[in-house]
Amino acid sequence: MTTVNDPADTEGQLIAASKVSGTNVYNLAGQHLGSIYDVMLNKQSGQSEYAILSFGGFLGIGEKYHPLPWHILNYDPLQEGYVVDLDRDRLEGAPVYEGRDEAAWDDRGWGHRVDDYYGAPGHDDLQGSLSAADPVLGLPAARI
Amino acid sequence: MTTVNDPADTEGQLIAASKVSGTNVYNLAGQHLGSIYDVMLNKQSGQSEYAILSFGGFLGIGEKYHPLPWHILNYDPLQEGYVVDLDRDRLEGAPVYEGRDEAAWDDRGWGHRVDDYYGAPGHDDLQGSLSAADPVLGLPAARI
Repeated sequence: MTTVNDPADTEGQLIAASKVSGTNVYNLAGQHLGSIYDVMLNKQSGQSEYAILSFGGFLGIGEKYHPLPWHILNYDPLQEGYVVDLDRDRLEGAPVYEGRDEAAWDDRGWGHRVDDYYGAPGHDDLQGSLSAADPVLGLPAARI
Repeated sequence: MTTVNDPADTEGQLIAASKVSGTNVYNLAGQHLGSIYDVMLNKQSGQSEYAILSFGGFLGIGEKYHPLPWHILNYDPLQEGYVVDLDRDRLEGAPVYEGRDEAAWDDRGWGHRVDDYYGAPGHDDLQGSLSAADPVLGLPAARI
């Protein structure tokens, strides 16, 4: 087997889809928001379109599943997790479902609701700039 | 919940990463080559870079795992599976590993070997045209 001993690569740029589940998600303030429960892939393009964030407990209620558009996630190798520019208030108002059903993903209405809430995908220029675009968010302007 | 009853959408353009495993893979001749064992995602971009095709049995030997560059896969909604322009001979000569280890994906050498064999990713113009690019393949020129 060819080996490539490039230290820059040893962090692993790839992850098996079967192992994404459980990856931690933080906000810019370093708060642990939850972890990735699953990822919704486009069957043809193979692009991850939504990450399903599972969280629960801090409000004393059951596990909740928040689909997040992939484009708002930034991978941080230091934390070995994803960072999103969201505070918990923002997350609490977001589209959510409870229980481990798949939120009727065949129904694109789900995706539309999520896109409407966080900003449409494909606008990579908006990545990480939700706070600027949405004064309700009220987050510091710091960028990672 | 908003519902969108668009028949064009009900096929489901998305699939949960946790459920990609087991999706069938066929070649252009309609032969069943195997099924997807896992998908390697780029942690940051969320793009599927490699699909790991598992197959075995028809040669009387154990399960084998062939990483395929995602760009050679085409999703066929009718077959509810992926179609690749590969015959079995071509696949038998391809980079392969046995056993359910992860083929040292942290080592980008694996990706390089796979890319070298099938053609480098990012060349979407090559998608589905391996037979034209590689006379060894000897497949019919038919396109799906």
